[in-house]
Amino acid sequence: MTPALEGILETALYAEDLDRAEAFYGELLGLQQITRAGNRHVFFRCGAGILLIFNPAETIKPPPAGAALPVPPHGTTGKGHMCFRVAAQALDAWEEKLEAAGVPIEADIRWPNGARSFYFRDPAGNSLECAEPGLWAID
Amino acid sequence: MTPALEGILETALYAEDLDRAEAFYGELLGLQQITRAGNRHVFFRCGAGILLIFNPAETIKPPPAGAALPVPPHGTTGKGHMCFRVAAQALDAWEEKLEAAGVPIEADIRWPNGARSFYFRDPAGNSLECAEPGLWAID
Repeated sequence: MTPALEGILETALYAEDLDRAEAFYGELLGLQQITRAGNRHVFFRCGAGILLIFNPAETIKPPPAGAALPVPPHGTTGKGHMCFRVAAQALDAWEEKLEAAGVPIEADIRWPNGARSFYFRDPAGNSLECAEPGLWAID
Repeated sequence: MTPALEGILETALYAEDLDRAEAFYGELLGLQQITRAGNRHVFFRCGAGILLIFNPAETIKPPPAGAALPVPPHGTTGKGHMCFRVAAQALDAWEEKLEAAGVPIEADIRWPNGARSFYFRDPAGNSLECAEPGLWAID
């Protein structure tokens, strides 16, 4: 029997302006930057996972024939979504920090199971969320 | 000082055919299904994270005025990306299982740091990857 997939190692969002993405995720959200490859991508560490921000205009290009690292093409347009894990008692502080930086809180929701999360946007318009892990019955 | 974001709680991909997504992620990949909401979304647990598969034709609709749960609209078109965490010694078994199910392995890469990962597609064309966590120096 094949072992279960252990978890999610990489999560991807797309943004055409990587300078703005780098400032937003690195400086404002405080994620540790791993690497930046010109106008193609910028990667960040976030807990036990990796957040990949790709410029879809670059990643949609197929790898050249005979490429040493033939990464398959991908790329989206529109507004993606992801959610950060934040301790319940830290949600207020994060809302205040974002609002102080001029990032509006688009919604602040108390879910039927009692957990709380709130939503905001990155500079590319992706829908980001901060949620306490109890939302999914995760400790 | 604001506490660091603890990790990534939710990762999202988009697929218009949720029946095919449910079969692929639930039955073939073996993820535990959390919920299915008609033609809007199907959610799965994966280790300490949650994989959300949304139908962008539905999630792009703004919430109705006065909605109890005013989730902001989002949705992408094109081919997204995410990567599962798989122990190095389980990568071969996963390749064999996928190929036996008629899912081609699009690339199998040995990265400069020695870690290995491989790529395949979900029924919607999203680019999925299985990687050993050493790719990102994660134990």
